[in-house]
Amino acid sequence: MKESRRRFSVEEYEERKLKVLTAMTRHQLDLLVITDPANMCWLTGYDAWSFYVHQCVVLSGHGDLFWFGRGIDVASAQLTTDIPAGAIFVYPDECVHSVDQHPMQHLADIVREKSFAGARIGVEMDNHYFTALACDTLRKHLPAATISDATSLVNWQRVVKSAREIDYMMIAGSLIEKVYEHVMTVVEPGMAKNHLVAEILYVSTRGAEDAFGDYTSIAPLIGAGDEAAASHMTWDGSPLEQGNGMFLELAAAHGRYHCPCSRTLFLGEPEQKYHDIERVIAEGIEATLPLFRPGVTCGEVAGSFFDLLEKHGYEKDNRCGYSIGLSYPPDWGERTLSLRRSDRTELQENMILHFMPGMWFDNWGFEMTESVQVTPQGGACLANVPRQLLVK
Amino acid sequence: MKESRRRFSVEEYEERKLKVLTAMTRHQLDLLVITDPANMCWLTGYDAWSFYVHQCVVLSGHGDLFWFGRGIDVASAQLTTDIPAGAIFVYPDECVHSVDQHPMQHLADIVREKSFAGARIGVEMDNHYFTALACDTLRKHLPAATISDATSLVNWQRVVKSAREIDYMMIAGSLIEKVYEHVMTVVEPGMAKNHLVAEILYVSTRGAEDAFGDYTSIAPLIGAGDEAAASHMTWDGSPLEQGNGMFLELAAAHGRYHCPCSRTLFLGEPEQKYHDIERVIAEGIEATLPLFRPGVTCGEVAGSFFDLLEKHGYEKDNRCGYSIGLSYPPDWGERTLSLRRSDRTELQENMILHFMPGMWFDNWGFEMTESVQVTPQGGACLANVPRQLLVK
Repeated sequence: MKESRRRFSVEEYEERKLKVLTAMTRHQLDLLVITDPANMCWLTGYDAWSFYVHQCVVLSGHGDLFWFGRGIDVASAQLTTDIPAGAIFVYPDECVHSVDQHPMQHLADIVREKSFAGARIGVEMDNHYFTALACDTLRKHLPAATISDATSLVNWQRVVKSAREIDYMMIAGSLIEKVYEHVMTVVEPGMAKNHLVAEILYVSTRGAEDAFGDYTSIAPLIGAGDEAAASHMTWDGSPLEQGNGMFLELAAAHGRYHCPCSRTLFLGEPEQKYHDIERVIAEGIEATLPLFRPGVTCGEVAGSFFDLLEKHGYEKDNRCGYSIGLSYPPDWGERTLSLRRSDRTELQENMILHFMPGMWFDNWGFEMTESVQVTPQGGACLANVPRQLLVK
Repeated sequence: MKESRRRFSVEEYEERKLKVLTAMTRHQLDLLVITDPANMCWLTGYDAWSFYVHQCVVLSGHGDLFWFGRGIDVASAQLTTDIPAGAIFVYPDECVHSVDQHPMQHLADIVREKSFAGARIGVEMDNHYFTALACDTLRKHLPAATISDATSLVNWQRVVKSAREIDYMMIAGSLIEKVYEHVMTVVEPGMAKNHLVAEILYVSTRGAEDAFGDYTSIAPLIGAGDEAAASHMTWDGSPLEQGNGMFLELAAAHGRYHCPCSRTLFLGEPEQKYHDIERVIAEGIEATLPLFRPGVTCGEVAGSFFDLLEKHGYEKDNRCGYSIGLSYPPDWGERTLSLRRSDRTELQENMILHFMPGMWFDNWGFEMTESVQVTPQGGACLANVPRQLLVK
């Protein structure tokens, strides 16, 4: 791995591997096929936009690890990881988007050659990019293996962040502050939505003097007017209108680590309903932040917030947060714990969550969210963006 | 569907549906579960960044169609499609990133209620976002159904572009021209890579006066110095160095339709090897473009180009192109035909391909690519970016 591309120390990667190995022992796995690009990167440093083809890193219970992917991505593996040349395996390019042969046939061959034909093999059955056919191909070509579901096994090892990971996320936090400052400077009625997004992308990618802005795992989401009721729509070229509210669901990223932060922006004099919900959400965040401390469960955090919403006559039937950190498209969520009443996961120090009190109504919406670090003193926000309805 | 969000006529959506229905008959399918977001959008207009959770549109052989997804995305379905309220189904939010229940259980319930429990059901087994667990869950909860692989079934219906689709792609082509013009204006030795990318994103997203720039399905890929050997690496904050070559693999997009176009840029006086490969690739493109006409096979196109490369002593062991059009992350490729010797697909008028003569060597690389429309007169490039090694 080139020094400049090494984002964490050798020791930190070793610790990460140890965590995964411990989890593999607990799940009685001899081999783990890791296809989630965020898990691949967290474990080895591998970082490239190659996840549109099949690829993985494979870890054995003895701690041996190899990379498997497309020939033209070997250079990325060499540049971003310490995986030795002998542990880098490629499949023929003919397999790419082909119906004749599947890359996983070739992975099965390697697994057999390494004497794991009859092993207990974990695969990430519900992580992104592990397709149904990838799984079926492995099953077919490794008939003696016991293939079991290891969805999120690695993701769960990532939930407590190291000091350096927190540094990265705080840098991302400082970048999202710049983004909102800039938005407030340039936004105005009549501005085309894509022009606003261009400004957002420019500032978030430029980053700061000594901190580059990385691509975010979700494109800027901006719902204006009626579309503010739709939580995940992107932009077109239509203008932002005076007298309209819009939500901005944005993040900044540094070295693949994210800090999401959403706000609602009103152009003109906001209707009373905006002020009403702003007050309730602000009170809810204020009351709930102290609960982001070790030992409190996700359900308790969510319950506190939902109870307060209900007291004020609002109802929210979707989760109000999730774990965040290192990620690749299509999601900046870590896909482990969720802030919902039924989630009994206990918070631990240095977990980081996107606390996401978004409300979507029939034809409008309101988002005001924070990325929050769990500390013994309660939640610490990664970014300091004015926590209010933004008005211009 | 709101008029402003309708990208194609009702008639065009009907034609598309008919194409899929015909293919379903050929494959003897009663029901098709379409999870690929590009296929969902092409068939119905559905457009939102919601593909990080399970969702689909389901089409029956009789032409009935329904949307299935998360509650908070219903508004996007209402705003971007004509699907009636009665054909919009949601799964409980508790299913999102949960190990307790899978969204596909609920889809199975709906399929049963619609009397398709024993049907022949096609699923997109190797398309992105159809996970192994999604498939297994459907199998488990629809034990009487015959679930078969319909990977790329819809993708193949998309390969020949309509007049309006070509308009969109030509607009994207005009936007990528602006991007390269701007790159040549601003790039200079010492510039941080992320600063260059910020400029690229700014210009591509602003688009033109009457054509917004959409997000592209792959982030700008920029490999400089040693990293030019790595085909899919993204940027960091390191500076572009005088005396270094870099490839830029970029696209612009409009309404989710893409025009990729890659070039190689050298800061300073290029070494001879850059001029050598430039000459060969330019000659190869020139000689091969006339073959982009109906009736010629992908293998013949690829063979012509590879033969010429080999004549000059170069070898390329990966495909040199693929079909493009409407897409979502992580890929702007359509995942149907590929320009490789073994692909016997005959080109048809108004197919559009990314002709992709990228060469990656030990510690450098060269890309000079074109998005090409198949016409009776041969290939027509969608963008007019100077086809040469860019030098500054």
